[in-house]
Formats: sequence, structure tokens, C-alpha cells
Amino acid sequence: MKKLLLLLFLPFSLAAQQNQDSIFIRKIADELLTNGKAYEWLRQLTKQVGGRLAGSPKFEKAVKWGESVMKEAGADHVMLQECIMPNWNRGGKDVATIIGIDGKKINRPLDVLALGNSLGTGGKAVTGEVVAVADYNELEAKKDLIKGKIVYYNYKFNPRNIDPSVSYGEAGQYRRNGASRAAKYGAVGIIIRSLTEATDNNPHTGGMTYNDSFPKIPAVAVGGDDADYLWSLAKKSTFQVSITTNGKFLPDAKGYNVIGELKGSVSADIYITIGGHLDSWDVNEGAHDDGAGVVHTLEVLRTLKALGYQPKHSIRFVLFANEENGLRGGTKYAEEAKAKNEKHLFALESDEGGFTPRGFGFTMNATQLKKVQSWMPLLAPYGTNVLRMGGGGADIGPLNRSLGTALGGFLPDTQRYFDVHHARSDVFENVHKRELLLGALNMAALIYLVDQYGL
Amino acid sequence: MKKLLLLLFLPFSLAAQQNQDSIFIRKIADELLTNGKAYEWLRQLTKQVGGRLAGSPKFEKAVKWGESVMKEAGADHVMLQECIMPNWNRGGKDVATIIGIDGKKINRPLDVLALGNSLGTGGKAVTGEVVAVADYNELEAKKDLIKGKIVYYNYKFNPRNIDPSVSYGEAGQYRRNGASRAAKYGAVGIIIRSLTEATDNNPHTGGMTYNDSFPKIPAVAVGGDDADYLWSLAKKSTFQVSITTNGKFLPDAKGYNVIGELKGSVSADIYITIGGHLDSWDVNEGAHDDGAGVVHTLEVLRTLKALGYQPKHSIRFVLFANEENGLRGGTKYAEEAKAKNEKHLFALESDEGGFTPRGFGFTMNATQLKKVQSWMPLLAPYGTNVLRMGGGGADIGPLNRSLGTALGGFLPDTQRYFDVHHARSDVFENVHKRELLLGALNMAALIYLVDQYGL
Repeated sequence: MKKLLLLLFLPFSLAAQQNQDSIFIRKIADELLTNGKAYEWLRQLTKQVGGRLAGSPKFEKAVKWGESVMKEAGADHVMLQECIMPNWNRGGKDVATIIGIDGKKINRPLDVLALGNSLGTGGKAVTGEVVAVADYNELEAKKDLIKGKIVYYNYKFNPRNIDPSVSYGEAGQYRRNGASRAAKYGAVGIIIRSLTEATDNNPHTGGMTYNDSFPKIPAVAVGGDDADYLWSLAKKSTFQVSITTNGKFLPDAKGYNVIGELKGSVSADIYITIGGHLDSWDVNEGAHDDGAGVVHTLEVLRTLKALGYQPKHSIRFVLFANEENGLRGGTKYAEEAKAKNEKHLFALESDEGGFTPRGFGFTMNATQLKKVQSWMPLLAPYGTNVLRMGGGGADIGPLNRSLGTALGGFLPDTQRYFDVHHARSDVFENVHKRELLLGALNMAALIYLVDQYGL
Repeated sequence: MKKLLLLLFLPFSLAAQQNQDSIFIRKIADELLTNGKAYEWLRQLTKQVGGRLAGSPKFEKAVKWGESVMKEAGADHVMLQECIMPNWNRGGKDVATIIGIDGKKINRPLDVLALGNSLGTGGKAVTGEVVAVADYNELEAKKDLIKGKIVYYNYKFNPRNIDPSVSYGEAGQYRRNGASRAAKYGAVGIIIRSLTEATDNNPHTGGMTYNDSFPKIPAVAVGGDDADYLWSLAKKSTFQVSITTNGKFLPDAKGYNVIGELKGSVSADIYITIGGHLDSWDVNEGAHDDGAGVVHTLEVLRTLKALGYQPKHSIRFVLFANEENGLRGGTKYAEEAKAKNEKHLFALESDEGGFTPRGFGFTMNATQLKKVQSWMPLLAPYGTNVLRMGGGGADIGPLNRSLGTALGGFLPDTQRYFDVHHARSDVFENVHKRELLLGALNMAALIYLVDQYGL
């Protein structure tokens, strides 16, 4: 009889609960779409602070801005968590020029950006004949021809990938490791096709690392038009390029994760983290990468606070210090969590841009994922159609690796992301107000559900 | 025993069938994403033809272009289906100016566009004090104050609607009927807030109609910034505006639906239609509206032909003549289908822009929808997450109304659509190559499945 009663009442109470959740998420939506400040905050961050590379004076300014807005958004308290950051500096204008074709001198400038963490040419140009390769296979095949040359990597995004972030993943190795792979065979510099399918000529920077076993040669990226030109030129001609870059590492600098907290009313010692990264590259305004994640985070805080929401768990809103060229912010956050023996239930990151929401990807076990997927009817009206295994974010990765915390990554539509990612065009004007707000809305709803029901 | 065998084999054969479909749709994707011409065709249509209002010489040019590309794309044969179109002409530059505030003369221009089908002011300015209203309720409340005045409608998109096309639907009545509703009470002109939430000042035109019972007064739209200014000004001041417009109807003009056909190999007498509309407003390039639908249609044809696909049913690829201010193309197409007693299984339209795909909406019965929804696993890898009741397209509507044909409407993400819709900013540069191609891909896959399995 008891069982029968349970069977009779369970669906009703579940339905009632889902209805309550649906009403609260609608409240989140109304508050956020009517009074949301994410877009105005992004305007401030991009236009008043601007590009904010870790270690730079602008990053310090960004920390002050973040601390102030975290308070404005309504955090119970705000902390700055110190971490030591790398301090790479571009050091000046990056220049590359085609100086000769088939024995004739010319002067055809290429629009280039040095890759982040790459070292400069020491005040003079590095010149060399160009050996163009499609990929590492071709590099290996031509390894005996490379000594004293400049290697051009033409690796292209595979247009057949539906999600460009898959293409980005495939192409990323050329930016990250291409210099040392070429230096191993005596190359004096490298040029890469930027990691993009954009129909323009903007070069895209981004992090690289050297293998200490080989000379640390200059490394620059060209945009799509110059890349096409270089590739077609290499098919028919012998040509030389000169490269002048000025990258250097200054002494490590102090930086801070900016952390706001809403204290839990039931399980205050169990944490949910939501964040994006405050640093950006130096050549743009870091609007999508990751200004969007920063203001998503602040907007979720503002909205929950504006609705008077009392979370069960403690929620931490984190602007991570250093994602682009070191991951020191996320590493520090996990280190302190471990040192203090904190319990972290879930961490959510937004670091794929401020575009229209499609859903979330998760790093968690199958039972947890099933639970999250049961919330689909509550999230779908707001744009979430995907709740899938796989995802998280660079900054929250250490939390998973050291504490086993379940992770979520916000998945906006990515078709336009790699057009602007790490390029000069990642500016406020390329962020759409409603798309940005809808991202925060879906994130706020997910955080609410995790807070209410755990995993 | 037979039944048992069926039960045993059915799941296998169904799985095998789904696998074959999955392989063919992947072929569609590879062909389309690697060799797709939609983006280049859109460049031609927008840059070489440009704005192509029904009845205008540019529309004639668009017909010639469409006929030529339909052949290039591989139609078995191409027909021009004549229809008589309205021939509204803007007649010159639309001008509106604030000429006095609180008794002081000033000269503050407003950036305006006359609404399509509205009549001009006859070579001189119409001037009047402005009565600003939020909506028709306020208009009715102020009806005794309107005689001799210019009514300003400030009806705003409701930001709480997740889908802006819902907001567009709600706001549309002010553009369509606002002039006559105000003229009924003696207004001499109207200004409307454009049907957009864009964060710029572009005015948006669009179709209106007069009620013949009342004077045909001039009607213009202002963009967001001017709208905010007018609304705040009206809260504190009395002010006058002058309006000069030049709209007129020229004699009806001959136009054409451009129709390409792939002949069916099994049921050649049963038709599937896919289309978009060839006409656009005069003030832009009609890139999203509906250049995207035009090149989607052509790309589906090109791709199926390139893959050597032999459709079971006859597929018609239609560039409709006149959606924006008359619907004469779609009406004619359905009339001829009825006159010839043709059987039309399904019609699909793309007329909500060339943005990233989200799915399709349908006008069909519940059994048909259930069948279509069973294809979700085949479509989801390409961006389709929504297969819902409700949808179609203006041009294919008459086919449903007169023949009962089941309809589908392509649903791209709409967050950015009303930023450019009917505004000067609806240009090629605001269309994203991959988003455009992915739309065609999902449409081609749906057409393939309908052709294979019917409804």
C-alpha cells in the first residue's frame, strides 16, 4: 500500500517540483533579459581596460575592474587570490616581408603576429628561403631541405568538421609545437597559417612553447589571404622572407584570481564554481575570449542576487588570472582548494565565446550526466539543446585533476568563434547583446539546478 | 513464424537503412562543405544585382541571374513562371526632421525610411505636432488628441521573448496597420519604432497596407537611437516634425518565379518544393532576406546533382517572385499547381536568414510530424536540434491553403536576424559563409529523407 501511494504521489510531486523550477528559471530569464548588465560590463572591460595580457599593467587594471564589479554584482564577499604569472611581452611590431621571388628582389609585406611566448629576432631580421609544408608528414619528408630555411605550415581547418572547435583542436599542434619541430631540422623561423577559416586576412596569435632541446626560433602567423598567397607562391616559385619580432619574457609578475562568493544556506562547506578568465591576448579587446566568460560569470551572480536567491551550496564566481599563456590562475585555485581540503561539487566555465547558446558539455560520470540530462525540458526553452559528455574549461581542469570535481563547459554556437579568436577582430562590436545575455541565462539556470539537486 | 522473422529482421534492416541514410547525409555534408557555391552565389546576387524590389529593373536582372545559376546548379530543366507583380517605388530620399521643440525652431534630422507600399507627401512636407504612444491602447486613449498630428508608435520588442521572431510577430501590426489606425482619428502622418532590438540607429522598412476607408497618410520608421530620443523627448516636451516621402505605385509589372526541376525516378508526378524568395527591399542587398533562402535552394540542387542523386519524387527548386509586398509569386505557383491538378507532397522554405541552423518548423499532421521527428538522430550531427509543429513560409503558404500540402520552414538561429531585416545593413558582409552552408546542408538532408520515405 505504501508503495502504491508512493507510485501515485511521486509523479505529482515531481511534476510540481519541475513546475517550481520552471517558474524560477523563467524568473531568471525575465530578470536577466530585462535588467542584465553583462553587455554594458563587457563594454567597460573591452573599451576602458582593453587587451589585458597576464603580467601587463592592463591586467592589473582588469583586476581592479573585476573586484569592483564583483561587489556591484552583489557578492557576499570578494577575495583576490594571488598567483605568480608569466610575463611575456610582444615588445613591438611584428614584421614579415617577402624579399625575393625567383632571384628577383621584391618587398611584399605580410600581415603577421608573433605567436605568444615566442622569442624575438634580437633587433635584426631573420631571413631565409621558405619551405612550405601542408603538415608534419610533409615536414618529415622534407627534413633534409630545411636547414637555414623558414618553414611555412599551411595546415588548414578541415571544412568537413561541423564544429570548428574540432578543426581548431586538430590544427593547434602547428601553433604550439611547430617552431621546435622545424628547429630540430635547422629551420631559422616559422610562419603558420592562422587557426581560422575566416574569410579575411587577420593573423591570429595564441600560445606556443619551445622544446628546450632545439634553438628558439621566431614564430609568426599569417591570416587567410596571405596564407593562400604563400601556398600558391610556393607551388611555382622559390622565395625568401625576412622576419623581425621582439618577443621576450620579463620577470614573473604578481597576478590575482578575482573571487566573489555567495555563501550556502545548507551546505556552506560544499562549493560550486563558475568562471571565465580575465586575461586576454594583447592584440585585441578579448571580447569573446574571454570577456564574454567574465561577464557571463558576473551576470549569473547579479541575477541570482537580484532575485534574492539563497543558494544551498556556496557558489564561487571566479575571474581566473592567466589562461592564455600559463594557466597559473586555474592551477592556483585548485592548489588552494586542495590545501584547504575544500569539497567542490561542480565547476562550470565559459570560454568559447559569447555566441548564441547551444548547451553544455560535461566531464562527469554517466549517472551524473543522466541526472543533468533529465533537466533538458527545463533548459530547452532558453536555447540549450545539447547536454553531452565531454567538456569543461582550461581554468577548471586542475580542479577536476586534483579533486575529481565534476566539470561543465558552456557551449555556444562556435561557427563564428575562430573568426575572431586571438585576432585583432575580437572586439566588443563583434559580440551580440542578446546572444551574450542568453548565454548567462542558460548558465544561471544550470547553476540553479545543480545547487538545488546536486549531481 | 513469418511474423517472428519479421520481428527479428526488422530492427536489423531499419538499422541498416538508417546507416545508409547516415552515410548519404555525410556525403551531402562533405560535398557541400567542400565544394559549396552558396556563398559565392550570394556574393553575385548581392553585389552584382543588389536590392531587387518586385517590379524594378533590378528584379528583372535577378530573374536572369537566377535562371542562369539554376542551370549551372544542374536542373534538368528551368522554367520561368509569369506572374503580375505590384510595382511600388520609393521615389526618392525619405526625410524627416524635428523642426520645433517647446516653441523653439530647431533642425534635428531623423534617419528614416518610408514603409513599403506607403504613399508620398506629394512633393511637399507634411508637418505636425507629435503624439507619442506606446501601443494601440494608448492610441485609443488619446484618440481625441490626434487630429492634425503625427503619431509616433514606440512599440518595443519584448526582450523577455527568447525568440525575437515572436517579438516581431507582436510588433508587426504597428508597421502593417499603424497608419490607418492613426488616420482614422485624423493623424496626418506616422512614425514607428523599427521592428528590431538592434543596438544601432538603422531604420527598417517593410510592408504596410492602407485601409481604404481612411486618408492614406505618410508612414516612416526610425531606428533604435532615434526612437529612444523621440520617446524621451515626448515625455517632457511638445515638438513638431516634418516628413517628406515620395512613395508611389507604378503600373503592375510582369515578373517570374524561377523554377528548376529534378525529375522523379519513381513518382515523377508527385512534387516536393524547396524555395526562397528572389525579391528584396530596395534599401539593401537582401542578403539574409532572402538571398540566403535563394542560395540555400540553389545549393541543395547543386549538391544533390553533384552526388548523382536520382530523386524518387520530382523536386522543384523555386525562387519566388514577390514575397515582400504582394506574395504574387507564391500565389501564382499554387494557382498553377491547382489548375494542373498536381500532387504536392511537401514544400520547404528558407526565409528567416542565413544564420546557424537550429532545425525546422512544420505545418503537417501529428503522424507526419512524428515520422519527421524519428529522423532527428540523422540530422542532429549537423545542427538540427528542433523539429517542431508550426512553421512554413509565406511563399509556400498558398500551396498548403489550396492543396493541403505539408509545409516545412527552415529555422536558423534568429537572434541577429532582426538587426538587419529590411534595414540597410542586410548586406553580404553580414552573412557568415559556414553558417550559410550549414543551413543548406540541413535542408538538403531533410529533402533527401522526405524524398526517400515520404511523410
